[in-house]
Amino acid sequence: MNSHQMTNSGKLRHFLTIEGLKQPLLTKIIDRAELFSNLLNRNIKTIPLLRGKTIFNLFFENSTRTRITFELAAKRLSAEIINLNIHTSATSKGESLLDTLHNIEAMHSDMLIIRHHQSGAAEFIAQQVSPHISVINAGDGCHAHPTQAMLDMFTIRRHKNCFSDLRVAIVGDILHSRVARSQIQALGILGVKEIRIIGPKTILPANSQTLGVCVYHDMEAGLEGIDVIIMLRLQYERMKSALLPSAREYFHCFGLTDEKLKLAKPDAIVMHPGPINRGVEITSSVADGPQSVILEQVTHGIPIRMAVMSMLLGSKSE
Amino acid sequence: MNSHQMTNSGKLRHFLTIEGLKQPLLTKIIDRAELFSNLLNRNIKTIPLLRGKTIFNLFFENSTRTRITFELAAKRLSAEIINLNIHTSATSKGESLLDTLHNIEAMHSDMLIIRHHQSGAAEFIAQQVSPHISVINAGDGCHAHPTQAMLDMFTIRRHKNCFSDLRVAIVGDILHSRVARSQIQALGILGVKEIRIIGPKTILPANSQTLGVCVYHDMEAGLEGIDVIIMLRLQYERMKSALLPSAREYFHCFGLTDEKLKLAKPDAIVMHPGPINRGVEITSSVADGPQSVILEQVTHGIPIRMAVMSMLLGSKSE
Amino acid sequence: MNSHQMTNSGKLRHFLTIEGLKQPLLTKIIDRAELFSNLLNRNIKTIPLLRGKTIFNLFFENSTRTRITFELAAKRLSAEIINLNIHTSATSKGESLLDTLHNIEAMHSDMLIIRHHQSGAAEFIAQQVSPHISVINAGDGCHAHPTQAMLDMFTIRRHKNCFSDLRVAIVGDILHSRVARSQIQALGILGVKEIRIIGPKTILPANSQTLGVCVYHDMEAGLEGIDVIIMLRLQYERMKSALLPSAREYFHCFGLTDEKLKLAKPDAIVMHPGPINRGVEITSSVADGPQSVILEQVTHGIPIRMAVMSMLLGSKSE
Repeated sequence: MNSHQMTNSGKLRHFLTIEGLKQPLLTKIIDRAELFSNLLNRNIKTIPLLRGKTIFNLFFENSTRTRITFELAAKRLSAEIINLNIHTSATSKGESLLDTLHNIEAMHSDMLIIRHHQSGAAEFIAQQVSPHISVINAGDGCHAHPTQAMLDMFTIRRHKNCFSDLRVAIVGDILHSRVARSQIQALGILGVKEIRIIGPKTILPANSQTLGVCVYHDMEAGLEGIDVIIMLRLQYERMKSALLPSAREYFHCFGLTDEKLKLAKPDAIVMHPGPINRGVEITSSVADGPQSVILEQVTHGIPIRMAVMSMLLGSKSE
Repeated sequence: MNSHQMTNSGKLRHFLTIEGLKQPLLTKIIDRAELFSNLLNRNIKTIPLLRGKTIFNLFFENSTRTRITFELAAKRLSAEIINLNIHTSATSKGESLLDTLHNIEAMHSDMLIIRHHQSGAAEFIAQQVSPHISVINAGDGCHAHPTQAMLDMFTIRRHKNCFSDLRVAIVGDILHSRVARSQIQALGILGVKEIRIIGPKTILPANSQTLGVCVYHDMEAGLEGIDVIIMLRLQYERMKSALLPSAREYFHCFGLTDEKLKLAKPDAIVMHPGPINRGVEITSSVADGPQSVILEQVTHGIPIRMAVMSMLLGSKSE
Repeated sequence: MNSHQMTNSGKLRHFLTIEGLKQPLLTKIIDRAELFSNLLNRNIKTIPLLRGKTIFNLFFENSTRTRITFELAAKRLSAEIINLNIHTSATSKGESLLDTLHNIEAMHSDMLIIRHHQSGAAEFIAQQVSPHISVINAGDGCHAHPTQAMLDMFTIRRHKNCFSDLRVAIVGDILHSRVARSQIQALGILGVKEIRIIGPKTILPANSQTLGVCVYHDMEAGLEGIDVIIMLRLQYERMKSALLPSAREYFHCFGLTDEKLKLAKPDAIVMHPGPINRGVEITSSVADGPQSVILEQVTHGIPIRMAVMSMLLGSKSE
């Protein structure tokens, strides 16, 4: 799958999944995001790197946070961005997805940001588009959410210098989380010392061994000695399907409280991709506490997306 | 309440209410709007004052006119503006208002424009945001709509030189009107000679005396010698609650007709915040007649909002 | 009707219909689109011709493709563009269409793009607006869609040098198609050798003779010797009204297949305004085949709309 997202000369053409990418490339993305982040903090908010480029936000699934950070990233690179909620538009006239795509291509578009409820949608679209168009996966079904994983890696590196010393725990519904899948891949490529996944048996993946992770069903044990705690959002939809206990019982076993947080290293950081269900997967005192970097993650979404966008559209002229 | 919107050095930090502001500040806003208005008329439509700033239009209540004039004002100051209809977005995932706000803050935002159906919403939000973020109240419940009041003051000054000579009548549902509350405060601060409020007893405020206004239930008497007539929009929602007679009866008593208009001064101007209910609070021949400045009010919304926005974001660097 | 869209000095003030326009003007639009198209291909995507101008996309009827190409055209000319879906906005407060229009006028707007389900809506609006505002008809009922017709003419000229040598066939529901009406007028003005309309009797106009077209109910006969085939979209709404046979039967008689395409000239081009109903009015192998220019039509929508916009807003200063 990874061959699709690289050019023959080894540059990024699309950004669909973390799987198969090499450590130097991930580091390059983080380094470039660091550069953009510094520019933004120096109040230089617009950079003409993508002037004249046209980017489409194609959201088949709603996500305000992700859509807006892509939109802001595009604007800060001086690109034009068109937001398109596909639910409410062309397909209502019975046009097929492929025809919609080819029409958008024909409007001089340079990049498509795809959010879709089906796994593989961004990959499918990337296979269909013309050679000059880049596709970014902004979340597809249970499969991948690579820019989220990269902004998480950027956030970790800002707090912890060396990935190879880190023990990272991911807590929650790993089985259905595209965020967790992409995070596990990125953490593995960046060479952390240990990745633990913590959750009830019903929502942990069957192939944990091949993922290179250690499985814990006991959160207290799993948090011991941990440097980075990544809480996942509980999908209420899943709860109805009897895979999960009640929200109250879930919080009792796997919710992050001040008490459980003390089991991790004293300087452990707490992450969450948002939106938070307070009192379900995390208590407010932890979410808003000194070890939380949750809002930094949101902020870092902008320079990370600027980094990926500029590398994709830059690769064609290089 | 006014202390929240001023910095210690006496500059505007937020713009939440007219209450408690001083006359020189209101005059400064109008003067600056005059400057921007002249620039716009000289076809200089974009000014780089807010280049690189990010402004969010957070509308919890629909308002096309107000949203668009804020959007145009932001664009003419070269700021980025993101429109967010909160009904249809993040909160649908169960995220709390405060979490939504903190996420928007984390996206490098510099200013939030808030429209909300609950009185006090903008004030509440202003208390929560980081020090570098400014909040503008674009209408909260029955409480305040300060930029509407300022565009009305700007419109009045363009037609009538000196506030201290003016008699102003506000006609309609004063009790529930955030527009009227803000107008009465602004007219008082700018020192008009007399403010009259005209309407049925059921929809006039109980504390008229403390407001510094004269109350009339007879429109003919109330309009005598008036320089400025401000008609309010009749909220049909209120009519259902039996506070008001039928639309027809209301028009008979408090609708502005050509006959009633003759009771005011010959050069009186007629204002309305829009949208108009023709034949309910005003007749078409008056709304479209030579004394009407209703569409000028819409036009003036842009320079007034530019003035407030630039003063808020300028106050931090001054 | 055409007098409304021209200034006294013979320049375009509005763009409402092709009817009554002269050949040099249509050629000038196509020439200018050619110029913009070349600029876009040389990666010069933004031109400051309309800097500081404010354009409103007023869509009373949904159309993603048309809305976005107008939006991109405006942005590439450096204008501000405000999208307004009228269904969901001001009119929900009971404001009349005219009041909405006058409010938008008052917001310093320079141009209104109107899409409306009623024939004559754009013309009506053009009669109401102030002298400094231009109106573009982006499709009104069954009446006209002049920018679509012009992008089709541009597409034809790119493939066929001389209009006077061409035989053009339009296939489908001519009676209800604003696209077909505008195309027939444009083709007539540009002086093609022959225009044929092909379709079932129930959906061909009664006044075919006065339109200057030849009528065919037999598609095989109608395609013989044709240079340009324009397929129309089948409106499913019409089918319910018993004007049309089933989709299957329609495809059998009037759907464009490889076999039928062979009856036209070997270098005939195939056009369709989109969105396509594959397997109803056209088969996929033709729509995606070497003679199809359907996606080029989409691309050409941008320079054509840039051409019309710049001519309208340029005419006032000339």
